Amino acid sequence: MRAPDELRALVEEGLAALALSPELHGLEESLRYALDGGGKRIRPVLVLATCEAAGGRAEDALPAAWALELVHTFSLVHDDLPALDDDDERRGRASTHVAFGEAVGILAGDALLAEALRLALSYPSPQVARELVDATLGMIGGQYLDIRGDDYSEKVNRLKTGRLFDASVGLGLWVAEVPEAEQAPWRVFASELGLLFQLVDDLLDGDGSVASVGAEETRRLADAAAERAHARLDSLSVDTTVLEDIVAGLAARTA
Amino acid sequence: MRAPDELRALVEEGLAALALSPELHGLEESLRYALDGGGKRIRPVLVLATCEAAGGRAEDALPAAWALELVHTFSLVHDDLPALDDDDERRGRASTHVAFGEAVGILAGDALLAEALRLALSYPSPQVARELVDATLGMIGGQYLDIRGDDYSEKVNRLKTGRLFDASVGLGLWVAEVPEAEQAPWRVFASELGLLFQLVDDLLDGDGSVASVGAEETRRLADAAAERAHARLDSLSVDTTVLEDIVAGLAARTA
Repeated sequence: MRAPDELRALVEEGLAALALSPELHGLEESLRYALDGGGKRIRPVLVLATCEAAGGRAEDALPAAWALELVHTFSLVHDDLPALDDDDERRGRASTHVAFGEAVGILAGDALLAEALRLALSYPSPQVARELVDATLGMIGGQYLDIRGDDYSEKVNRLKTGRLFDASVGLGLWVAEVPEAEQAPWRVFASELGLLFQLVDDLLDGDGSVASVGAEETRRLADAAAERAHARLDSLSVDTTVLEDIVAGLAARTA
Repeated sequence: MRAPDELRALVEEGLAALALSPELHGLEESLRYALDGGGKRIRPVLVLATCEAAGGRAEDALPAAWALELVHTFSLVHDDLPALDDDDERRGRASTHVAFGEAVGILAGDALLAEALRLALSYPSPQVARELVDATLGMIGGQYLDIRGDDYSEKVNRLKTGRLFDASVGLGLWVAEVPEAEQAPWRVFASELGLLFQLVDDLLDGDGSVASVGAEETRRLADAAAERAHARLDSLSVDTTVLEDIVAGLAARTA
């Protein structure tokens, strides 16, 4: 079992060297720029850690892990566009549409989604790609509810953030060939983890749950989600130490 | 063997009743609007006709045919955006971003692409989805070269238009379970058909090839492409009468 930092190094190395379709021509530069933003790579690390905990090889899960990071990056590139969140910066750098222009920003997002599916389709069975595309549709639906601005915040978070956490765990399970009938407890774990991530995000940003129930209550809710995530891992009869580390890291994160 | 019009009716009926992901919530309305634009459905009809000619059942090819039409529609919705071609109208109606706002236009295109892949992934083998995603990447690369405005017109057409024609034939072949080693002549046919389509488009719009070599020479080139497409069909030892009709229809089209 490798520690989260070792898994993250595996993800980074492969992402930097990822072969993209030659038919993208010069558009490739904008995809690489968006992928090179130095995120925490939480989702792909979770894919690898889940796969190892479930008895698979992390290396076999790498294409699925990269695919998920590409979907996440696609969503950031499109969310940053002027018509959506209109963010000029992302992690201290110009966002993709600012660096390359809005037209390229739109096409770069499209291509990231298509490249993600191409990676997910490198597996002999279509299950990995199906998991990814279903989660992507949920995420897009969440983004739609978000821009509508209705009072849907829990539902929005469940879709916008939660669906990719579901997929992080789901992709690892499919690669490790865990039968669908045995996936339920893992998927409940994923759902607690997505909630924990969102609540800590709200604490760091001072919005969402913090705005509606306050920081103290949000911290309590986050700790309760972390506790339930740990309890769910305890119920699995496999070595989940790396996943425990990930839960603890998410609960304690400060950025 | 069913005539192109009968195949088109099959496509239309299913598209109107297509089940979309419930997680899209209200975004669904914009996808249906974009899909309901009354296009000629040339690409999905070609999927069905190829599948039947190659010995498969058109009904089995329907999800692949719809998937391709969704990718085509995704590309139109994003191409019409202000940052790209900035088209307010599409086939006599307000384009999707005008009818629903720019943010929804972006998300609707994203969701159409993801729904297309979901449909393509309904097959047990990943070949249909792989064909579709590879063609999509080529098409996006063509759109990138187009907005760059470099003098790439033949290459742009080969990618932007040609790759979805390749996929129209390729999808039909995979559903009919034609082994890859036997697909080459069909794929040459697809490439001639894509060229024919583009040349006739240029004749109708008075641009592209017409602007560079004139209308008369463009007509001659189109007729030569149609002739090569027919010759390629003649070389196949199956009943290709419906595909012959499609070639003749494309060569003679006036809209």
